[in-house]
Amino acid sequence: MGAPFAIAPAAPPCFIAAEHHLSIPLAMLLVFGSAKLLAELFERAGQPGIVGEILAGIVIGPSVFGWIAPNELLHALSELGVMFLLFRVGLEVKPSELVQVGGTALMVAVLGVALPFVLGWAIMAAWGYPRVESIFVGAAMVATSVGITAQVLAAKGLLQLRASRIILGAAVIDDILGLLVLAIVSGFATGRVNVLDITLTATAALGTTALVATLGTRTMRRIVPRLSQSLRAGEVQFNVALVLLFALALLATYARMAAIIGAFLAGMALAESVSTRVNDLSAGVAELLVPFFLVGIGLQVDLGAVASPSLMILAAAVLIAAVASKWIGCGIAAAPLGWTEAMRIGVGMVPRGEVGMVVAQIGLSMGVIEKSVYGVVVFMAVATTLIAPPLLKMFYRGVRPIAVEERFQIG
Amino acid sequence: MGAPFAIAPAAPPCFIAAEHHLSIPLAMLLVFGSAKLLAELFERAGQPGIVGEILAGIVIGPSVFGWIAPNELLHALSELGVMFLLFRVGLEVKPSELVQVGGTALMVAVLGVALPFVLGWAIMAAWGYPRVESIFVGAAMVATSVGITAQVLAAKGLLQLRASRIILGAAVIDDILGLLVLAIVSGFATGRVNVLDITLTATAALGTTALVATLGTRTMRRIVPRLSQSLRAGEVQFNVALVLLFALALLATYARMAAIIGAFLAGMALAESVSTRVNDLSAGVAELLVPFFLVGIGLQVDLGAVASPSLMILAAAVLIAAVASKWIGCGIAAAPLGWTEAMRIGVGMVPRGEVGMVVAQIGLSMGVIEKSVYGVVVFMAVATTLIAPPLLKMFYRGVRPIAVEERFQIG
Repeated sequence: MGAPFAIAPAAPPCFIAAEHHLSIPLAMLLVFGSAKLLAELFERAGQPGIVGEILAGIVIGPSVFGWIAPNELLHALSELGVMFLLFRVGLEVKPSELVQVGGTALMVAVLGVALPFVLGWAIMAAWGYPRVESIFVGAAMVATSVGITAQVLAAKGLLQLRASRIILGAAVIDDILGLLVLAIVSGFATGRVNVLDITLTATAALGTTALVATLGTRTMRRIVPRLSQSLRAGEVQFNVALVLLFALALLATYARMAAIIGAFLAGMALAESVSTRVNDLSAGVAELLVPFFLVGIGLQVDLGAVASPSLMILAAAVLIAAVASKWIGCGIAAAPLGWTEAMRIGVGMVPRGEVGMVVAQIGLSMGVIEKSVYGVVVFMAVATTLIAPPLLKMFYRGVRPIAVEERFQIG
Repeated sequence: MGAPFAIAPAAPPCFIAAEHHLSIPLAMLLVFGSAKLLAELFERAGQPGIVGEILAGIVIGPSVFGWIAPNELLHALSELGVMFLLFRVGLEVKPSELVQVGGTALMVAVLGVALPFVLGWAIMAAWGYPRVESIFVGAAMVATSVGITAQVLAAKGLLQLRASRIILGAAVIDDILGLLVLAIVSGFATGRVNVLDITLTATAALGTTALVATLGTRTMRRIVPRLSQSLRAGEVQFNVALVLLFALALLATYARMAAIIGAFLAGMALAESVSTRVNDLSAGVAELLVPFFLVGIGLQVDLGAVASPSLMILAAAVLIAAVASKWIGCGIAAAPLGWTEAMRIGVGMVPRGEVGMVVAQIGLSMGVIEKSVYGVVVFMAVATTLIAPPLLKMFYRGVRPIAVEERFQIG
């Protein structure tokens, strides 16, 4: 679809996107069109469409055709896309449902952080890399990017399953643990681990999450109906939802967590107090913007960066370690629930996506990670997002979607 | 709403928006929250909410608090916002309805271009400005920004009225005429008016518009049902609509028209072939992004730029000329329809918005417009968007909304 326009980037008269001289309509068409085209081809081949959308980013990005490169606009649309994705996931989850599975989720998160960290560190050390660099790669292998799994489960209507709720709960805890690992590792790299700072960071993150999760629903149940009655301007509930979404995303970043955790908490807080109209309207935004999140992941890849044989072997080893350690770590933690659920949860935690890349970028900017190792981490992060959806599809085969109304009978 | 967060732009850990170090959630909260807050206050005071949203941009922008300045991200969101706005307007209009009023729309557009051009030129010349600069200001006063009027009419459900359709038709023609005026004036400024180039420009713009308007509906009526049946990936109709929207917006920019003309044509082409689901989903995007378009207009203002007494008088004169010339020009052209409709159409064409600013920017970049005169044009462009909504509200008082189903009985 995008092809005939994509070949001729003759600068149109105005509205030029800064870095690459693509006009806004051209950038939108290229990203959205290629994502949907490949999603369609993958669906027809019996593969998850989401994999096609990530691959679209690799195809149109620096690795293959080089039609477009990551830039500020695409980054922002991607950020917004994953925020709306997690917001909509939150709309389908009640805090009490997460608390119910809290113990298991905590175990899943802890083992799913520990094993990848140790294994990543060990592999890099075995390859002869310096200690700080090895530790940083371990840290980059820690954090799960829940967006990919959430998109797959939401699209199949499987968010109400116990395994899905454990994945979501573990992903929130995982984000906080990843934050602590990064703080410790960064301190280690600069030679001074500030225990007070790390304690404060942990307290802020945990406190924010706990506060919103416990009081959010009740507060919104009180506030939203009043606002719906008293406000006059337009789609009141949707506007209130958007303000809360952005406010909690901001609060999350102030507590040094990912913005998407705030978006998820906003959705959860509103789950019981907004009408389905909010669901429909946010679906429109997500439909438009989630492809930018997925394509954005693919755009990060530069296959040229891992082109040498020795790097390719290292990249393969790191990838295998990343998949196996997360799968096994989370699987062991979830073992009491039985083989099937343990496998589902393990696979669901595999995608690293943008979180691993951010850690690697910090290492790069601190000068403790080389450019080539950064390329390896990015490859690992993207490859895990491509591997997880088909595995999820396999392990969830035959499970029928659960409508929201039914969930109380099943819970 | 935005206030407590807006005061402390302490740089959060990641996701920094390039120029002003506002994180994406902070920028979103600040723009969206302030827009909806002021919209609510204005609605309560019996004023149009849209005026509040534009004023929000003036308040948070360089003129007052300086919390945020125009940047690439806000520009892109604003562009997308007005594209979705016009797309949705197009969804409610049939090409045949525009053709019916084509003659009047053409007259409205022509007089609404000629009078402002001549009057703008005359005022600047009377003030003693050089000829080229005077002509450029005249050109900047030509083009109507249909977004403001469309938003007011759409919100009130009045797009089906004859006056509304004439405004929409005239706005499309107006864009093409403005393009020609700009081409001629630019040629004049550089000393060589290329008649061939201008003829080609006109042909491309007219040809594109006519082609899409005549064949678009039929083509989509044939294609969309087939695609809906054969495609598998997700919200098929919405995805097809988005691809067409971006493709025609791009085509419009290649024909040197505004992207929103393409978006409008895309909506019109799809009006008869997509389900209400496309309407709902695009409503979500518009709800999120249209405030960025409105706030973006306000952000352009820098009241400091017209602070000297002599400039203030000039700005007032230019503003009065801009309002009066458009109102009277379009009003005269629409006079055969009677006083009320002529007044409505005249007022509906008054907003200049971003189009006038783009022309002035080109003049600035060509070195034929001074910085101070640029400030005057921006002031005029924004002030017209603030004046039009209350006037529209006044002249449309008592008109009841027409549902889409009823329109055939009334048309």
